[in-house]
Amino acid sequence: MKRKTENPRVVVIGGGTGLSVLLRGLKKQPIDITAIVTVADDGGSSGRLRSELQMPPPGDVRNVLIALADTEPLLESLLQYRFVNGSGLAGHSIGNLLIAALTEISSGDFVTAIEQLSKVLAVRGRVLPAANHSIVLHAEMQDGTIVSGESIIPKAGKRIKRVFIDEGVKPLAEATQALREADAILIGPGSLYTSVLPNLLVPGIVQTIRESKAVKAYICNVMTQPGETDGYTAEDHIQAIHDHVGNSLFQYIIVNNGEISEEVRALYAEKGSEPVTYSEEKLTAKGYHIIADNLLVYDKFLRHDATKLSEIIMNVIGAKV
Amino acid sequence: MKRKTENPRVVVIGGGTGLSVLLRGLKKQPIDITAIVTVADDGGSSGRLRSELQMPPPGDVRNVLIALADTEPLLESLLQYRFVNGSGLAGHSIGNLLIAALTEISSGDFVTAIEQLSKVLAVRGRVLPAANHSIVLHAEMQDGTIVSGESIIPKAGKRIKRVFIDEGVKPLAEATQALREADAILIGPGSLYTSVLPNLLVPGIVQTIRESKAVKAYICNVMTQPGETDGYTAEDHIQAIHDHVGNSLFQYIIVNNGEISEEVRALYAEKGSEPVTYSEEKLTAKGYHIIADNLLVYDKFLRHDATKLSEIIMNVIGAKV
Repeated sequence: MKRKTENPRVVVIGGGTGLSVLLRGLKKQPIDITAIVTVADDGGSSGRLRSELQMPPPGDVRNVLIALADTEPLLESLLQYRFVNGSGLAGHSIGNLLIAALTEISSGDFVTAIEQLSKVLAVRGRVLPAANHSIVLHAEMQDGTIVSGESIIPKAGKRIKRVFIDEGVKPLAEATQALREADAILIGPGSLYTSVLPNLLVPGIVQTIRESKAVKAYICNVMTQPGETDGYTAEDHIQAIHDHVGNSLFQYIIVNNGEISEEVRALYAEKGSEPVTYSEEKLTAKGYHIIADNLLVYDKFLRHDATKLSEIIMNVIGAKV
Repeated sequence: MKRKTENPRVVVIGGGTGLSVLLRGLKKQPIDITAIVTVADDGGSSGRLRSELQMPPPGDVRNVLIALADTEPLLESLLQYRFVNGSGLAGHSIGNLLIAALTEISSGDFVTAIEQLSKVLAVRGRVLPAANHSIVLHAEMQDGTIVSGESIIPKAGKRIKRVFIDEGVKPLAEATQALREADAILIGPGSLYTSVLPNLLVPGIVQTIRESKAVKAYICNVMTQPGETDGYTAEDHIQAIHDHVGNSLFQYIIVNNGEISEEVRALYAEKGSEPVTYSEEKLTAKGYHIIADNLLVYDKFLRHDATKLSEIIMNVIGAKV
């Protein structure tokens, strides 16, 4: 796709709800967005389609497409609708089925399928899988056992030591090109071991990020994730990235300093999740620029404040562009 | 829906491929189209959705929506795409699944689901089910046995005496209203016993057609259909309608007088299908205006010539409006 405007080019790498929230904010800004999304999912509807139709898992891509779509709310509800009944249908979302059908119509080309659905949804930006085929994610736990499968790893009830992918995975050329041409690269938010790192582990991705002259920021999760980042501080998140792909992948770290009420804390504590804290001293000592602000909104769930986060990101981009 | 223009209002009643061909031609004309479609299907993907999700069968509606859609070819391929693999997915078309999901999103309201998909597809006209719920079609065969199920009747290998539906079926109010306000009502083309008659058997439909001041035409099938109309002439088709709902439901009968090559005849004969012939004398004796023309195009299948048929229909409408 040719560049249409002289807007700053922003590449976002991540997955999950956090990334979707971020993109809903960013799509209103005068920037060209490319989202690089993981294809390591193997649970639920995505996992079934992945194994039954031999295609990359569509779920993360679907969520990001919907977040970036410039379309009527009905179409969004339709794409997110999951069948409750129906033999073999129950659990599948319409969006996943559309991506699956378009992939088959495109003779198995997942990237073309995403492009076509992007047109139908008038997506503001581009969505790219990190690789054009499924990735199997493995985790080595602290006790030395190996657990395989993105959806299984957080449920193993063990502490993750490291994650890794099979050899021979190739990055999508469009993804590395987007990183090379980026004015800003945003890593996160999203599940550290099962969304962010699977993207960074694809050979060529990290090297391209390092070589890029873009301004680079890590957007830290607001809450810890049970089975993945229990008890993790912002420093622990960064240390995990360091341990997997080396130091200094980004210059900025965006963290939340907003207070969370006792009531909401208690709700999250029941699910084994607690606020991610940070030490200004330690992060600064490691050479990061810290951007701390009250980034929270609470509406049934704690979420990043999409508008505020977008403003912060536009400032960070402005520092470079 | 309010009338947007002063274009003639044309209501088309039928089903199957023939109706879709007709509508692809008609949608280019300056008319307001309403298609009334059967909900008696119980085979294939439609049948599975009907029984598993307790919804009206979406297949006929899907075909008509696609025929009337003013959208890109990709979206059409997508809606017609049928899964080949996938547990429980194989055989389902994407269009059927979209209608199913929209029906569930609309709390079971099939008509609202169709309206919503019509918007997404920029449908030129309105598509209405004859009733807002599934219909079970039964056939009494010439040998006195009863066969139930639209998809099963033509496969029974017997000659149909009459078809009937369960008591208590109510017509869709929007459908009878469209018939009342119509400038022209077109019946057929489509399977006589399993597409055309199931619509006419819905209580209230025939009475409304009779009371309507519209010009009314029957568009006769070009070929006989195995298991339904073996050996039928145009007069036999009309006689069947007479036997079910009484005489003189329409003034015009549109028949093909184009020759079919020996080669194509032979191909169709293998499948038990032959050209529908007509007797000008007999039809005229019954009081019908005959419109006979070469209505055929051959491209893998014999089809009505959509353009010519549209022109003929516009002339018929012009006779009234």
